[in-house]
Amino acid sequence: MELFEYLKAVAARIDHEADVYSKATDTTLQKASAHLLLGGGKRLRPAMVLLAADAVHKGASADIFSAALALEWTHTFTLVHDDIMDGDSLRRGRPTVHVQWDEPTAILAGDVLYARAFEYLCSVKNASPESKGEAVRMLAHACYEVCEGQQEDVSFETRNDVTIDEYLEMVRKKTGVLYAAAAGIGAALAGGNIKQISAFYMLGQSTGVAFQIQDDIIDLMMSSEVSGKDQASDLRKNKQTLLVITARGMGVDLSEYHKANLSKAEIAKAIRLLEDSGVLGKVRGMSETLIADAKTGLAAVVPDSEERKLIFEMVDFFITRGY
Amino acid sequence: MELFEYLKAVAARIDHEADVYSKATDTTLQKASAHLLLGGGKRLRPAMVLLAADAVHKGASADIFSAALALEWTHTFTLVHDDIMDGDSLRRGRPTVHVQWDEPTAILAGDVLYARAFEYLCSVKNASPESKGEAVRMLAHACYEVCEGQQEDVSFETRNDVTIDEYLEMVRKKTGVLYAAAAGIGAALAGGNIKQISAFYMLGQSTGVAFQIQDDIIDLMMSSEVSGKDQASDLRKNKQTLLVITARGMGVDLSEYHKANLSKAEIAKAIRLLEDSGVLGKVRGMSETLIADAKTGLAAVVPDSEERKLIFEMVDFFITRGY
Repeated sequence: MELFEYLKAVAARIDHEADVYSKATDTTLQKASAHLLLGGGKRLRPAMVLLAADAVHKGASADIFSAALALEWTHTFTLVHDDIMDGDSLRRGRPTVHVQWDEPTAILAGDVLYARAFEYLCSVKNASPESKGEAVRMLAHACYEVCEGQQEDVSFETRNDVTIDEYLEMVRKKTGVLYAAAAGIGAALAGGNIKQISAFYMLGQSTGVAFQIQDDIIDLMMSSEVSGKDQASDLRKNKQTLLVITARGMGVDLSEYHKANLSKAEIAKAIRLLEDSGVLGKVRGMSETLIADAKTGLAAVVPDSEERKLIFEMVDFFITRGY
Repeated sequence: MELFEYLKAVAARIDHEADVYSKATDTTLQKASAHLLLGGGKRLRPAMVLLAADAVHKGASADIFSAALALEWTHTFTLVHDDIMDGDSLRRGRPTVHVQWDEPTAILAGDVLYARAFEYLCSVKNASPESKGEAVRMLAHACYEVCEGQQEDVSFETRNDVTIDEYLEMVRKKTGVLYAAAAGIGAALAGGNIKQISAFYMLGQSTGVAFQIQDDIIDLMMSSEVSGKDQASDLRKNKQTLLVITARGMGVDLSEYHKANLSKAEIAKAIRLLEDSGVLGKVRGMSETLIADAKTGLAAVVPDSEERKLIFEMVDFFITRGY
């Protein structure tokens, strides 16, 4: 099966479940918590859960679909709360939850998605109780680290001296660990051994970091029509992304672009500057190394299969995607 | 053992764990998430977990102490988020988290406590994987309903026609289900049978509702020096508490007290009015019935023991306490 066909099929199933979820009750809270879920999205974390499961034990994904939902609901919870903190008004092409409703509703909508995620994980039917316990532990720990990562991300906004190592550790927590949990949970519930679960966890983590680096690149490079987000919002706020940090390390001055209103011409100029100075190339090189190492690590303990191929294609997509 | 001696011992253990938790790292987020935990509190939910476990299987509580922490951390998470939504500035005699830090930090601090709660539950050592799965399911479902209850509570603020049934259902979700989970989780992890787990769950739920009714009474009756909260804040905001709803049903007019600034004399006058009109007596009678029925239900499936006696004393305390 071709990757995009596979991802499309997974997304359609998640979309369907989001639709069912949104109609379960008609309270404000239910609508608010379903709002972003209904906005589509690439559904890459659920795909990671299902592919990891099938790579470990062909056919296992059929029994653990609700774990895929758990990951998407968790991811959506983090988006809803992050949007409040970051003051973002647009997400997946729609108003964010606190804009559409209000902050109290958005806080609770996130909390509800959080709870549902653990309920979904508990409702996995055909997995050993031990592996379910391990899955809950991985998800809870990921949530903990995601919060720490978000806090570090926010704290970086008032700093102008974040190092590459600090950035990578923040991103590991903010984005890496949820992909790590997705891959690790899929492998665990499918009955994988410790080495396999660990290799999947590491693959998810590294490729999640690469995913976030690509998100930073997309924020700069892609128009809001393509990405569904405000273009160059990180640059405007002088957010300490790998691009900005690497630029500083290479003596490339971006200070003129740290202002609320950037014209399309100014954004284009900033992009040219980062390309010509080699900053973009260096950052892309770091992503590529992360992906390559992750694939090598997994190949050592998980035999070749159609699903392993799809996983490798998917993580390649992480750093080539434009949306 | 005497109840208050027992509760004091549990509180001391939880206080100690809160202290350990607060010192685990020195990040802003860690400090913010530990802030309310360090403010003391009655620690009744942990006590419920431990007593339920020992009532089912004497000595079981020693093995599942981290489940008690899970309940206290969950409760604290809900307080941190509720305080943001309700705009409360004082809790357990200290500034609330969003006042001491800011809203983004308070949102994340709550999220972190939430995650830790599930991690604690996973770290229970000597319980069957099945009972741990059941415990996670109960906690997750409680969190979901707590959010719904809080949303209903907030939505009641713009209404003046809430019925007693609507109020009781809101309180069942907002407060009852977490006590239900505390008692049910203790019984499940201790190896209780379905009837016992269910009876504990119901006892926790009913007595949790009675607990909240008592909270509403305390909010009105007790000075902030005693309760650690702003006195009569519910009355000022015309919050739809059982007192206010019952008063309306009995034709007792409280409209003159629905204003931001109430003097001590005005609060005293409102209390006299509610006592003389029989409103307070009626509300207290509802609490007493809830507690009596809960005790009868439990006594049918759990044999008498020191721990069962303590549970009965504790739930009596729920509706006699003044803080």
